[in-house]
Amino acid sequence: MKASQFFIATLKEAPADAEVVSHKLMMRAGLIKRLGAGIYNYMPMGLRVIRKIEAVVREEMNRAGAIELLMPVVQPAELWQETGRFDKMGPELLRLKDRHGRDFVVQPTSEEVITDIARQELRSYKQLPKNFYHIQTKFRDERRPRFGLMRGREFTMKDAYSFDRDAAAAAKSYDAMYKAYCAIFDRIGLTYRAVAADTGAIGGDLSHEFQVIADTGEDALVYCPGSDYAANIELAEALPLIAQRAAPGEMLAKTPTPDRSTCEDVADLLGLPLSRTVKSLVLATDQRDDAGDVVATTIWLLLVRGDHQLNEVKAGKVEALKGGFRFATVAEIVDHFGTEPGYLGPIGTIRPVKVIADRTVANMSDFVCGANEADFHYTGVNWGRDLPEPDLVADLRNVVEGDPSPDGKGTLAIQRGIEVGHVFYLGTKYSAAMGATYLDEAGKPQLMQMGCYGIGITRIVAAAIEQGHDDRGIVWPDAIAPFTVVICPIGLDRSTDVRAAAERLHDELAAIGVDVMLDDRGERPGAMFADWELIGVPHRVVVSDRGLKEGQFEYQGRRDAQPTRVAVGGIAAFVKGRLRA
Amino acid sequence: MKASQFFIATLKEAPADAEVVSHKLMMRAGLIKRLGAGIYNYMPMGLRVIRKIEAVVREEMNRAGAIELLMPVVQPAELWQETGRFDKMGPELLRLKDRHGRDFVVQPTSEEVITDIARQELRSYKQLPKNFYHIQTKFRDERRPRFGLMRGREFTMKDAYSFDRDAAAAAKSYDAMYKAYCAIFDRIGLTYRAVAADTGAIGGDLSHEFQVIADTGEDALVYCPGSDYAANIELAEALPLIAQRAAPGEMLAKTPTPDRSTCEDVADLLGLPLSRTVKSLVLATDQRDDAGDVVATTIWLLLVRGDHQLNEVKAGKVEALKGGFRFATVAEIVDHFGTEPGYLGPIGTIRPVKVIADRTVANMSDFVCGANEADFHYTGVNWGRDLPEPDLVADLRNVVEGDPSPDGKGTLAIQRGIEVGHVFYLGTKYSAAMGATYLDEAGKPQLMQMGCYGIGITRIVAAAIEQGHDDRGIVWPDAIAPFTVVICPIGLDRSTDVRAAAERLHDELAAIGVDVMLDDRGERPGAMFADWELIGVPHRVVVSDRGLKEGQFEYQGRRDAQPTRVAVGGIAAFVKGRLRA
Repeated sequence: MKASQFFIATLKEAPADAEVVSHKLMMRAGLIKRLGAGIYNYMPMGLRVIRKIEAVVREEMNRAGAIELLMPVVQPAELWQETGRFDKMGPELLRLKDRHGRDFVVQPTSEEVITDIARQELRSYKQLPKNFYHIQTKFRDERRPRFGLMRGREFTMKDAYSFDRDAAAAAKSYDAMYKAYCAIFDRIGLTYRAVAADTGAIGGDLSHEFQVIADTGEDALVYCPGSDYAANIELAEALPLIAQRAAPGEMLAKTPTPDRSTCEDVADLLGLPLSRTVKSLVLATDQRDDAGDVVATTIWLLLVRGDHQLNEVKAGKVEALKGGFRFATVAEIVDHFGTEPGYLGPIGTIRPVKVIADRTVANMSDFVCGANEADFHYTGVNWGRDLPEPDLVADLRNVVEGDPSPDGKGTLAIQRGIEVGHVFYLGTKYSAAMGATYLDEAGKPQLMQMGCYGIGITRIVAAAIEQGHDDRGIVWPDAIAPFTVVICPIGLDRSTDVRAAAERLHDELAAIGVDVMLDDRGERPGAMFADWELIGVPHRVVVSDRGLKEGQFEYQGRRDAQPTRVAVGGIAAFVKGRLRA
Repeated sequence: MKASQFFIATLKEAPADAEVVSHKLMMRAGLIKRLGAGIYNYMPMGLRVIRKIEAVVREEMNRAGAIELLMPVVQPAELWQETGRFDKMGPELLRLKDRHGRDFVVQPTSEEVITDIARQELRSYKQLPKNFYHIQTKFRDERRPRFGLMRGREFTMKDAYSFDRDAAAAAKSYDAMYKAYCAIFDRIGLTYRAVAADTGAIGGDLSHEFQVIADTGEDALVYCPGSDYAANIELAEALPLIAQRAAPGEMLAKTPTPDRSTCEDVADLLGLPLSRTVKSLVLATDQRDDAGDVVATTIWLLLVRGDHQLNEVKAGKVEALKGGFRFATVAEIVDHFGTEPGYLGPIGTIRPVKVIADRTVANMSDFVCGANEADFHYTGVNWGRDLPEPDLVADLRNVVEGDPSPDGKGTLAIQRGIEVGHVFYLGTKYSAAMGATYLDEAGKPQLMQMGCYGIGITRIVAAAIEQGHDDRGIVWPDAIAPFTVVICPIGLDRSTDVRAAAERLHDELAAIGVDVMLDDRGERPGAMFADWELIGVPHRVVVSDRGLKEGQFEYQGRRDAQPTRVAVGGIAAFVKGRLRA
């Protein structure tokens, strides 16, 4: 490819609305162009990256036995009503009406449509397992689209759906996809981590997020450097930090803590470590009658150590809270504790509340908590002596760096990541809702077991940049760079030698299958180098009259500090040797 | 590829709503699956065809210097309001609102978005010419979607847009696209015709439709077998069939023609050829004031020979009717002619009407027309003697088979076709509406000259089937068949020899780049052959124990009446030799 036959449009400055580095660099390098909020044109340079990602994904999906098809962007609402998602999903589901007033959606995913296909096409156990996927335009009407392709509204996703006869077979399909995802991200050349994730209402332990490691990532990934334990923050198990509760050493004392309503302030005032304090969080669960009216409300007091954070997903897994909880209102708090938030605690509530202690809190002794009276806390609190044992003990908190690993193989570390893929066991959630059954050997209808497997194609572009960039621009992995090698001739217009040598090298590299760009725009070296460093092409060969006189080209990898001089005759082999297979 | 790793779903019967053969065969062969009216899932078998078409289109577009990008499916209404199309387009434009109530459309084409990109990105004459294209999902909310992929609502289109500095340069871009389209349809292997088409309000003669020849086509294509003249029926010029008007030979006579209101009935009654009669059609044009109210109406009487058909597009090109016309109301007709339609004519109208005669009618003598009185016609009518010369003479009619070719090189023939591509010179229609200018050498802003070039990717699938099928199923051209070669082993489960030979051949063909399918489902020969004939794979190799004993495979092309026996050792070379390059 020659620059004169392509479209290169770099910018000195990123537009003001570009907040994160990947968005800024994508705009500056001319990969994307904004059309509306969260809606982008993929410009020629950006589309090349997307197509390379798609090609890797497609090859590995096919290799894993998945079969490609293509489901429509505009989908009839009827199917979405069958599963209840048409009503349940919020405004992020883009709804529309056709000329006859019939309801449609612009697909955010395709569970409904693929299940509709499966219930018609897959009738016998002999046809299972099957895994269908497509790579298609999706739309999610985000309330606040931002960060360019990281959280856009229109995006490209690969979504695959597996159909199996039973849970054991579904686990095998899941495993094949897990392995395919590893192969995909390995080939793309990103540093990533597969972390166990929550399966929510589905249950089971078959859910993993594929996270590209980047300091700017939205998600916290928990892992154990000494083992293969890895989970997202919602799932990572927090063990009790205190193995056994110590005997009481202090007397219970009500201590004035005027205007100190946070654990930090109280610890500070009392000269105690924060880890001696206990934080109170008040939840409520409502019991409803058949008409949906609330007939009874239970108030729950959740206790976590002062230096810990409540994890709401974990709270939602406590049996009694599984049906759904909410934060208690101030009125409910005052009604039960006799005071407003800030000084709450488990001792001496006005009305009974259920106490759930985090595992660590349950083993604490001589701790500090609110006294249910404004401007007062209790110190020297001890379970059993000063208050009853907690009603429930559970894992309620986010793990923190240095916590013991749940597998007993060391301590946990935390990294930031960007989710680019997710493999998920669905069970019979959709097949039951839509009646997708097959006939088993006995001719009996059985619900199909499903899994779904997504990869954010356009999000990978952003994630790769968040992971790979420097102050000059993008640093692509070879596999997804818009061009693998750029030839920069100096004085192209002045020197026929330079032009001829550059074109020869271009043709030679192209002939051995290298995706090469020859910059024949005639730009000055400074501007030309800056463009290609911004665009992030991983390998550069400079052709100059001076070099040619010495029989040499100048090679420089995008991450290299210095160029390497290479003899003209050996350049193609040299470059080829530098490429990541 | 092996059938056991793919998804094959053939049907004995097409669903009742499939009206045309391509739709029936696509459903039966499992290429598509209906999701809603005019909305289809592209099943694995169908997607392979689409991808092959896309690949050919992409390669030839790139070769012609066009640059691929990707514009969004969901587009902000603002741009469509700039060109006025948001209001002007009817309900076929799918409109929707996002969560904030802002207007969007699901793109039917992308003139607005590409012009928006061009006006921002193309600033200097040095950047021109440029031609951008994308292959993307489109939606057109057809009132009556039907015929499967022929007139669907969601479809895949390649649309390209060229930007040039002046009309001469735009003509070059147009020509490059015309040539690229020929290369594309040649490579795909379809019998097609590029016909000149109407440019409507744009003017000029740069508009061609690429039509796949098929008896079932919706469009009539006019061409001259003795020359390269070809045009669609709207544009094909009809010369006068009578070179010079003959002198009157009959007297004008008012003849009773009770209950004979059509030319056919009148000719029949009078024992005259239909070509002696003249048909009257009444149009109206309204003159409006600034407030849009009608201030004056002119009634036009259009005359075409009894055996000819009025062409409304041609009528619309008559200078006086260019501003827009409508058919006159019955009230207007009675008011001007003194009788209801059925017996109208140019002689003796009650109020003045303007007469436009088709070129042939203008040279007729002794003709028959309505007498403006119920149940009466005039015979022996002659211009100049019985009525004034027509106010205007124009080409008003559709050409018919046997008409003289406008280039004087013979007579015209007519074929049916399916439009699969269109190249169109847009001039400054969009660049003027949206202010897309570049700076010329003098630093002066100039409007960009545009062209647009569409190919209906999914429509090609249907058109190829309309052109290529027989009573057993589809007959694909090699280039776009879902698989090029199918290996059908007989008794796969019984014979390890058959299995081994089939697999060896599969691997051998795959290794030399042949897109081969091995049917390892273990179907019985009859069902297996029927499936692949229905699916339309162009080349079949049968592997059987009996054949192997004789050291032979059986090859049969999809159009061959008989199989050919080929020695096992030479089969790969033999098959390769049969493939259309």
